[in-house]
Amino acid sequence: MARSLRKRKSRATKVAQPPGTLVYVGDAPLASSQMELLHLGTEGLRLVNPSDEQLKNVLHTHSMYWLQVRGVHDTQAIARLGQIFSLHPLVQEDILDTTHRPKAEDYDSYLFVTIKLPRTDPATQARGLEQISLILGSNYVISFQESQNAVFQSLEKRVTSINWRNNGYGAGYLLYAVLDVIIDHYYTFYEALQDEYEDMEMLALESPDTKTLQKILAMKHETIALRKALWPLREVLSQLERHENKLMPKGITLYLRDIADHVLQLIETADSLRDLMSVTMDIYLSSTNNRINEVMKLLAIIATLFMPLTFLTSLYGMNFDFMPELHIWWAYPALLCLMLGLVAGMIIFFRRRKWF
Amino acid sequence: MARSLRKRKSRATKVAQPPGTLVYVGDAPLASSQMELLHLGTEGLRLVNPSDEQLKNVLHTHSMYWLQVRGVHDTQAIARLGQIFSLHPLVQEDILDTTHRPKAEDYDSYLFVTIKLPRTDPATQARGLEQISLILGSNYVISFQESQNAVFQSLEKRVTSINWRNNGYGAGYLLYAVLDVIIDHYYTFYEALQDEYEDMEMLALESPDTKTLQKILAMKHETIALRKALWPLREVLSQLERHENKLMPKGITLYLRDIADHVLQLIETADSLRDLMSVTMDIYLSSTNNRINEVMKLLAIIATLFMPLTFLTSLYGMNFDFMPELHIWWAYPALLCLMLGLVAGMIIFFRRRKWF
Amino acid sequence: MARSLRKRKSRATKVAQPPGTLVYVGDAPLASSQMELLHLGTEGLRLVNPSDEQLKNVLHTHSMYWLQVRGVHDTQAIARLGQIFSLHPLVQEDILDTTHRPKAEDYDSYLFVTIKLPRTDPATQARGLEQISLILGSNYVISFQESQNAVFQSLEKRVTSINWRNNGYGAGYLLYAVLDVIIDHYYTFYEALQDEYEDMEMLALESPDTKTLQKILAMKHETIALRKALWPLREVLSQLERHENKLMPKGITLYLRDIADHVLQLIETADSLRDLMSVTMDIYLSSTNNRINEVMKLLAIIATLFMPLTFLTSLYGMNFDFMPELHIWWAYPALLCLMLGLVAGMIIFFRRRKWF
Amino acid sequence: MARSLRKRKSRATKVAQPPGTLVYVGDAPLASSQMELLHLGTEGLRLVNPSDEQLKNVLHTHSMYWLQVRGVHDTQAIARLGQIFSLHPLVQEDILDTTHRPKAEDYDSYLFVTIKLPRTDPATQARGLEQISLILGSNYVISFQESQNAVFQSLEKRVTSINWRNNGYGAGYLLYAVLDVIIDHYYTFYEALQDEYEDMEMLALESPDTKTLQKILAMKHETIALRKALWPLREVLSQLERHENKLMPKGITLYLRDIADHVLQLIETADSLRDLMSVTMDIYLSSTNNRINEVMKLLAIIATLFMPLTFLTSLYGMNFDFMPELHIWWAYPALLCLMLGLVAGMIIFFRRRKWF
Amino acid sequence: MARSLRKRKSRATKVAQPPGTLVYVGDAPLASSQMELLHLGTEGLRLVNPSDEQLKNVLHTHSMYWLQVRGVHDTQAIARLGQIFSLHPLVQEDILDTTHRPKAEDYDSYLFVTIKLPRTDPATQARGLEQISLILGSNYVISFQESQNAVFQSLEKRVTSINWRNNGYGAGYLLYAVLDVIIDHYYTFYEALQDEYEDMEMLALESPDTKTLQKILAMKHETIALRKALWPLREVLSQLERHENKLMPKGITLYLRDIADHVLQLIETADSLRDLMSVTMDIYLSSTNNRINEVMKLLAIIATLFMPLTFLTSLYGMNFDFMPELHIWWAYPALLCLMLGLVAGMIIFFRRRKWF
Repeated sequence: MARSLRKRKSRATKVAQPPGTLVYVGDAPLASSQMELLHLGTEGLRLVNPSDEQLKNVLHTHSMYWLQVRGVHDTQAIARLGQIFSLHPLVQEDILDTTHRPKAEDYDSYLFVTIKLPRTDPATQARGLEQISLILGSNYVISFQESQNAVFQSLEKRVTSINWRNNGYGAGYLLYAVLDVIIDHYYTFYEALQDEYEDMEMLALESPDTKTLQKILAMKHETIALRKALWPLREVLSQLERHENKLMPKGITLYLRDIADHVLQLIETADSLRDLMSVTMDIYLSSTNNRINEVMKLLAIIATLFMPLTFLTSLYGMNFDFMPELHIWWAYPALLCLMLGLVAGMIIFFRRRKWF
Repeated sequence: MARSLRKRKSRATKVAQPPGTLVYVGDAPLASSQMELLHLGTEGLRLVNPSDEQLKNVLHTHSMYWLQVRGVHDTQAIARLGQIFSLHPLVQEDILDTTHRPKAEDYDSYLFVTIKLPRTDPATQARGLEQISLILGSNYVISFQESQNAVFQSLEKRVTSINWRNNGYGAGYLLYAVLDVIIDHYYTFYEALQDEYEDMEMLALESPDTKTLQKILAMKHETIALRKALWPLREVLSQLERHENKLMPKGITLYLRDIADHVLQLIETADSLRDLMSVTMDIYLSSTNNRINEVMKLLAIIATLFMPLTFLTSLYGMNFDFMPELHIWWAYPALLCLMLGLVAGMIIFFRRRKWF
Repeated sequence: MARSLRKRKSRATKVAQPPGTLVYVGDAPLASSQMELLHLGTEGLRLVNPSDEQLKNVLHTHSMYWLQVRGVHDTQAIARLGQIFSLHPLVQEDILDTTHRPKAEDYDSYLFVTIKLPRTDPATQARGLEQISLILGSNYVISFQESQNAVFQSLEKRVTSINWRNNGYGAGYLLYAVLDVIIDHYYTFYEALQDEYEDMEMLALESPDTKTLQKILAMKHETIALRKALWPLREVLSQLERHENKLMPKGITLYLRDIADHVLQLIETADSLRDLMSVTMDIYLSSTNNRINEVMKLLAIIATLFMPLTFLTSLYGMNFDFMPELHIWWAYPALLCLMLGLVAGMIIFFRRRKWF
Repeated sequence: MARSLRKRKSRATKVAQPPGTLVYVGDAPLASSQMELLHLGTEGLRLVNPSDEQLKNVLHTHSMYWLQVRGVHDTQAIARLGQIFSLHPLVQEDILDTTHRPKAEDYDSYLFVTIKLPRTDPATQARGLEQISLILGSNYVISFQESQNAVFQSLEKRVTSINWRNNGYGAGYLLYAVLDVIIDHYYTFYEALQDEYEDMEMLALESPDTKTLQKILAMKHETIALRKALWPLREVLSQLERHENKLMPKGITLYLRDIADHVLQLIETADSLRDLMSVTMDIYLSSTNNRINEVMKLLAIIATLFMPLTFLTSLYGMNFDFMPELHIWWAYPALLCLMLGLVAGMIIFFRRRKWF
Repeated sequence: MARSLRKRKSRATKVAQPPGTLVYVGDAPLASSQMELLHLGTEGLRLVNPSDEQLKNVLHTHSMYWLQVRGVHDTQAIARLGQIFSLHPLVQEDILDTTHRPKAEDYDSYLFVTIKLPRTDPATQARGLEQISLILGSNYVISFQESQNAVFQSLEKRVTSINWRNNGYGAGYLLYAVLDVIIDHYYTFYEALQDEYEDMEMLALESPDTKTLQKILAMKHETIALRKALWPLREVLSQLERHENKLMPKGITLYLRDIADHVLQLIETADSLRDLMSVTMDIYLSSTNNRINEVMKLLAIIATLFMPLTFLTSLYGMNFDFMPELHIWWAYPALLCLMLGLVAGMIIFFRRRKWF
């Protein structure tokens, strides 16, 4: 869906507001906001919309927690979390700004990551980008989604069954797992795009009309939006690797490197898709030209066939008193034969030029 | 408005002048020059066109000041400020040169920043770039605007209510706030551009005539001008971050990094806009070709329909003595039927080729 | 063959699987999996589908071994090798993912390299890319191929005759030899591409129709796929050079540098091929235009020759009572002469404009 | 003027000459060579064509000197100066090669700078690039010009009135002043180019013929030549800044940085001009297409209007014996009315399609 | 000549050969191989096809030697030299591979440089690239040429007259001199290319037919081949400069820097030539469009002039019984006048549209 990918930036509404002012920047809220606190471990406890007490408790235990926030338009809820987990005002602002550029930032006691998740609306099959913000603390991860999208459902099942006390990876591994799921969604996305691209190429070759042009255009917009979402990820990942010794456990670098490889491959795919898009445009132009050529040929054939014939018939339609041919009895059939011969000759001429 | 964005560089008038010669470089002055001195703090004092004494006083107190200069064509006023605040001749020259490239320069006792502000003329809706120069001293900021534009009005209200003595950010925070307002204006600008861009795309698809071409062209000029204004900002911001320990207080780096993020996002938006502009040009060309194709088809249809018919009628307009068909009573209606059949056949032929 | 080069990425099937899950990612398996263990040395022993015992033995001797695995769709076989040679789960995953980006990774006790081998199907002459993964241990190399392709046959003969005990190069030299063979295949590939490219250029010049456009397109896809396979090789080689002192013997750097030179040359060739592809597109467009021009000229010639003539004959076909010319006996031959003169004049006119 | 900017490189005449061979490389000498020695200081002494004694004197005093050499085709004069000021043979060669790439080189006791000056021939208004070479010694600057161009006249007046003994800048300041004048000339040049560019855009839109194409082409050549002259200046200036502590006095860095800013701005202007040039080409192509479209429309209108009419008239020109319509008295005026109706209908059809 | 510049790479024949296998890679040998040993010094001794003894002698004296090998297809001769001068097998392989990428490599006791020499076949005026390999030892230079080309003749004269004992430059200076000659040949080449380019531009403007397209294409291929030969030279030269202290004497860096400057200038020229080539393509396309436009105009003029006239004549050729105009005696001349008036009117219409 082109709409979401070409989302209107409405950050301009914030002109001259003091920095850190919490204003929701994005489309109309996608769903009502909801929180869910997962206690990862043997218990697998799940709290919907936890109280302040329950949230504060997260900071004072050694268990692993995953707090999922779905819907980020509720500024008060964000402010409340900001206070409990002492998030910097700018971080709170960035979480609310769903048009933000992907980035990773280190705030001593926690790590802040914001990234785009490509998703397909199951109802309309429309494609779009959703912002996912992540806070990595010592024993918790907070994830902020724009929508109620159940994108992390299968991941939840998996992570609740892990023995977090013993694997030694800590919350860093959960962050990695979330990023891995997001990157996998990019692959699904690109596959859909590549399928469509191949249809596009066919269309450009075979029916180069305004409709096809609009489709090419829409796809071009999507490609550009995806590139803009993917490029900053390289930086994000290299920044995460650099924080290895603090919040990220040591063994996890290999896994982060693995994701970085995938991001690189995605970027290369995006680049070749971009190259191909411009090829499609060329094909479109060529096809249009070929069409013009076809039409021209038909016109030329018609004109070349009939103009000489019409001249001849017109010639013997003249009213001169002295036109001896008119009075010969075999002149008419002879003329008909001559004209037939002319037509045959011209058809041979066009055949030799391979015009039809 | 293309005019302002394609402003004539008249720096050439300075050929062979000694460096530091104060000459105003720019369009005809936009307004008469005016100064205003804001005493930021509990008092909120405001002095219009302050005297030398009042200005010198700024340097000898510990209060926070914001000196706004509106209109930079008045070389004498700039020279006077230069003397009072001991500004380097090159800085004075750069303030007067409204075509200068955005930059930040460190002069030991003060920091000099020059930057472009995108603004829309409220009367004509014309868009343009205005130069803003900023001097950051230990306890003051001087801002130089080209016009009387009240761009900082809402900011003034906010900063006069801050308790400057206690927040510990000092003048560096004021500089940041001014930059933040300017960056926010870029967002407003880009939104307007993107809206126009979408209209442009529509126009290129639907009415590819010379008027549309001129609009595309004007927008291309604007995009190039904006890119030129935005690119150097990256350097400006990284330079400001480097000066953290001197005039910039420590906690402010996070805020500067935030602006730098926005600048990066703006540059990426500018780049994708540029990509899209060239797509628009391609669409325009394709649409023109499609138009030619349409016209050609009409011509071919007309010629293919009427040429054979005219040949036939012309054939029986010949004056040969011996043309037996002419004397058969059903020949005329038969010919009419034949011609109707021909027309029907050709219409089927064109339908199958999907020509109409 | 465009099919293999535009292989559908089905990595997306792995969404939300835990990392290290062994899933085969690729086309339908090309052949049944097969293992062969070569004892390099004086003996030249060859074991087909060796037992676990025989494989474990490799790790406890000082002889040189080459384990060839043909067909990588068998996840159990990979897992078994992974256990015996203690390969990291991510390495096992990468071996199974035949769409992986070329890379080299250092895992303390072994080196992992994955690379693309260009091959031509001998039956269909279709071109494609096959993934080759390599594990370099202290005294062994494991190579994983997608197919039963006997690409290393001549290399086997050569390496079994080397006296591995004395040359001091160790397994690193075998890795180098395998890479060298692969790079040589790229040359064969590019030669075929360049030959085809020259045919393409001819076609674009001489028969610019939709068929040619499709061929250009297919070749463009191949060029992009090859570029994507080649680019990461630079990095792979520089990484191998860096590991000189561990698994790579000292004297081998010169040989690796030699390969790096070839890769650079291949990349430059790929880049110029890419430049040329866009030239071909331009030629194609120009040729289409030239065609249109030719057709237009014919049409213009026909119309210019016959329209005036038909007008004249039509003129004397009018039925006015008073047309004195009609009654002059030499009027008809005179008109015929006039018409001949007109035709001659127009032919001279077109000749001078070099229209035919 | 395109001639000078596309100056034939005749360096090829030097093939296999030993390096340091003094051969003049350039167009036919622009003027007879002339030297002038300015004693900068209170005296303001000026010696035309000074003797060897007078030149050697320069090296043994502490006064500031500016030796201007106008016309560099005289190899003997250059060799003579080379001997007196002990210039390296390669420097002498570079001074004579007026096609040399701009550069700055450090030769221990002096600094060598070669740079292009854009100039406009006052007689023919032709634009071209002239090579300026500069030698900076401890207390002198030697400037080599290709022509008698009085480009430094106003600078001379200024520098002779400076009190060189006390300002502490030394010869480095004179070098800076010369560079500043040259950079200012680039601004004048670009202004002229930009004016012309706007005319070009108009022409491309309104009269896309071969003449306009040639003008666009000539301008493209100029833009490329200017870019080639400007790009190396960045490097030249950063090299000069690095030599601050030797021949360049300390305070001058600020001034050099100022020039560097201007060079950066010029390069950016050159880049956007280059972008715009390719836009102009697109406009030109579009305009041509629009023209074709216009002509096609006229043709289609004419054919659509007259072909059906001519068919009808031709129909009733047939000579069948039995055509009852021919004998009805109101058939002729009825046919005329029918034809009028047809024409009216078609005109409405074209109006609706907005064809005229 | 396009043939040589687009030389078929036949390196692929080496697939799976052990590295260091001496196989000649190149076109059919250009000439029979020949060796010449020059004793540089006061004597100027010249030995044609020296014996092993004479060659080994080179290594044991302190005189300066230049060994020229013309024709590199003779693998035995190369192997023999390789043994005498103890050249690494990979070096021998690279000398035989005439398609090798330019490079410089340091082998402790000698330096290996391979580079392309642009040459013009004096008989056919065909242009091509010839590979020159150079070995720099402590007191000798070995040069390998593909052909019998006497490209170094004038250099030989010069270097035999130098007093090698005293100038202190050693063999490094000879290497420099050879490189200088090669670079000078690039200038000659580019001059020829630039001349041809200007002709090309003319052709593209004035006769945009398939022949011109083929010429543009051939030139494009040449430009790409030259760029590929030039780019690696930057690296080669920076590598030579780094070896200053070993085989290269100290004072020679200045000379190498001089060559590096020229290489930079050549690359910039190549880049602008490349820019211009794409401009030529645009011009070609525009010219074709202009042609189409011209033809269309002629067609439109012809149709617009004759269609209305033919309609009128056809009108009065109808056979209605009641057409009163037919019986008026002045109707015929009146109609003729009307038609003349129509033609005049239409001619005025076309004039105003500036169609002819």
